[in-house]
Order: sequence, then structure tokens, then C-alpha cells
Amino acid sequence: MSMLYIKEEEAGKLLPMSVALEAVEEVLRLHGQGKAVNITRSRVRLPNNVLHVMSGGVPDLNITGLKAYTTTRQGARFVVLLYQADTGECLAMIEADKLGQIRTGATSGVATRYMAREEARTVGIIGTGWEARAQIAAMSVVRDITSVKAYSRSPENRQTFADDILAAHGITVTPVETAEEATRDVDIFITITGADDPLMDGAWLAPGTHIIPRAGDLVKMLVHVFGKG
Amino acid sequence: MSMLYIKEEEAGKLLPMSVALEAVEEVLRLHGQGKAVNITRSRVRLPNNVLHVMSGGVPDLNITGLKAYTTTRQGARFVVLLYQADTGECLAMIEADKLGQIRTGATSGVATRYMAREEARTVGIIGTGWEARAQIAAMSVVRDITSVKAYSRSPENRQTFADDILAAHGITVTPVETAEEATRDVDIFITITGADDPLMDGAWLAPGTHIIPRAGDLVKMLVHVFGKG
Repeated sequence: MSMLYIKEEEAGKLLPMSVALEAVEEVLRLHGQGKAVNITRSRVRLPNNVLHVMSGGVPDLNITGLKAYTTTRQGARFVVLLYQADTGECLAMIEADKLGQIRTGATSGVATRYMAREEARTVGIIGTGWEARAQIAAMSVVRDITSVKAYSRSPENRQTFADDILAAHGITVTPVETAEEATRDVDIFITITGADDPLMDGAWLAPGTHIIPRAGDLVKMLVHVFGKG
Repeated sequence: MSMLYIKEEEAGKLLPMSVALEAVEEVLRLHGQGKAVNITRSRVRLPNNVLHVMSGGVPDLNITGLKAYTTTRQGARFVVLLYQADTGECLAMIEADKLGQIRTGATSGVATRYMAREEARTVGIIGTGWEARAQIAAMSVVRDITSVKAYSRSPENRQTFADDILAAHGITVTPVETAEEATRDVDIFITITGADDPLMDGAWLAPGTHIIPRAGDLVKMLVHVFGKG
């Protein structure tokens, strides 16, 4: 048999968020039960390049594989190698930028499914890029989202994001002028921006808000939230 | 630009031992000078499969990459992903069974170049598989090899090995009936067999013999050799 090569544009079309979300939930559950292997990321650090590699496998799914990506001044390039465990065959090489965005969104979706209030309907989001789109897609799978407030530094990007989300999910997005507007009075609050500081203040968060922070924002948010006392 | 895919049969033809040997020597030298990154092997261990991944990079060569291989009851499958460091592009995916055999041979060649006696001319080898062929190819690059004695359990394999080495390098190989014959009175002694125990005894080794043991045979040989004291 021969290895499939799946390009970015195909990967995005082949994997609906609802499917990714169920897959991520299944593998998280298996991992929690000690039925999955996860090897932490290694990094080859050169002056102008970092090669990141992570690998893992799931016996129940008969699958093992790795993700490798290079980061340079020109950006990041991602591939996944997927193997059939019992035969050791490489089934597919998958360009994995889009795949990673969907997987990141799906992970937020699983957390939201189990940790947000059942009646959560409104989302505030800081960041309006591709990853932000995947986050909203995931929210719409696990909750009946009725409205989104979106903030990013560029008014154009906010509007394009609003147009795209309406087209993709039929959800109305209100582009807002400040991070504070996106943070106040929402059931689910997401930061997913390349900005160094998402400009949020924990004092703006309503009690009971389900928070999905970027990795780097988590500690800061905890300080804000617990600082409110 | 697009990624090259290099299959086993091409990899073997594209990489002469002399070229591999110079490449391995250069990278070993750079690594010794702290100018190469080498990330130790990680392993995803499933009940029926192990996925092994190792990665590294060399700034002076503008190259980074990884080798991944699965081992199952059906055998091993190897691939290398090779990246251009400055752009982060994946230049090639290379099926790497043959490549690994050549690289292993080349590493022995570099060691022999610097550690064997200048006048070493004769080789004894236990094992007559593909890796054994690469070892003899490497020896012939760094020393003027005049004769080889080869032992393996199968008389047929010994003879095929002798025929192949004569055809490839013009070196006469004498298939021998015992491991002892292959070990006695040689300048260079190599064990490279899948057998659990290469059946060698350190007492058979002449002083001054350059030894190239399989990883698993090294400690046993040291015990033999120093036991002779």
C-alpha cells in the first residue's frame, strides 16, 4: 500500500470540527485511563530554526505517529506522520497547520462541554485569526452559541472575522472597540491572539464565566481572578 | 518548491559509501566541536509497535531533521525527514533502511580511519547480511583491504556474501566454518549479526586487532580482552 499525502487545503476540508472534537475527547479519555502514550515535545534548537517533534500512540485505535514542525523567521511548517500500529506502515503524511488549529479548537470544545455552564450562550473573544475561527467552531458544537463579541487590534480583521463566522455558523459576531467590551458580560471568554498581552483585566470577568486562555495568559488570569477575592 | 520522496532503491544508489563516510566524519567532527545538536531517541511503546524518533541539526550545513522508524513483528520501517534550516522547508522524505545501513558502515569507517593500524589489510567478520556488506564497503574506503574471512550460521549466506563482495569491491572473501576462524589472525574484526551471541571468544583475538563490535557485544568483548591480561 502507498502513503497518502494530504495537503493543507485538503486537511481543512476533510476534518469537520464535530469529528475532531469527538476524536480529541476519545483520546483524552484513553490517555486519562492510561491507554495512550504521549511523548513530550523535543526541540532541536539551531540559530535560525527550531525543529519541534512530539509523538504518541493509542493501542485501542491501532495508531501511532508524530508531529514535526519547524519554526523560522519565515513562519512555521507542520507535518504529521500517521502510522498503522500493527503493521508499522506509514499511512499518511499530513500538512498540519490547519489540522493543529482544528485540534486546538477541539480541545477547547471538550473542556467547554464538561466545564462551562450548560446554559452558556455568549462568547467574548480576543483574537480574530484562524485559531480564533476554530475556537468559535468548537464552541458552536458543544453549546448553542447565540452571540459573539470579538476584539482584535485591527478593525478590518474584526469585521472579516464577523463576516466569516456568520457565513460558517450563522452566528452574529459584534466587533468591539476594546478588550474590555469583549470581556464583560459573556458566558465564555477566550484569548487567542498573537499579541504579547491580550489587554484583559480579570476585574472585567463576570462570576461563572468559562475562561479559555492562551497558554501564556493562564497564570495572569488566575492572578486577576483570585486577586478580585 | 516541492519535497523530494526518495525510495529505498534510489537511496542505496544515490549515496556511495565514500560520500557517506566523509559526511559522517564531518558531522561527528562538528558535534565534537559543539556545532551540532543531537536529540536522543524517544520511543512510543505500544503492545505491538514501537515508534522510535531521533532528531538533530547542523547549523554549518543549514540542515535539520529527524529519523522515525516503527518496529513490529513484521519488521522495521525507517524514514528520514530532511529540512533546510533557514527556510524551515522539508526538502525530502527518505526511506531510510538502506541509508541507515550505509550510515552505520560509514561510522565504522571513520573509527577505522583513525583507530586501526595504518597497515591493517585483513578483516574477519561475523555476520553476512546487508549491514555486513556496508561494513566491508566502509573498510575498503579507509584501508587497502586484501582479504576477508566471513562467518555466519548459513553456508549459503556466507557464499553469497563472498560473491557479492568480490563483485562490488574486488576483494576475496573466504567463507569460514567457525566463528573462531573468522576471529583469529585478522587486523580488523567485526561482529554484525542478528544472532543473539556471535559465538566469539576474546582469547582468539590477536593483539593489535581493531575491533568493531555490535553495540550489544562491546561489554562482552571487553571482558574477554581484559580477561586475557
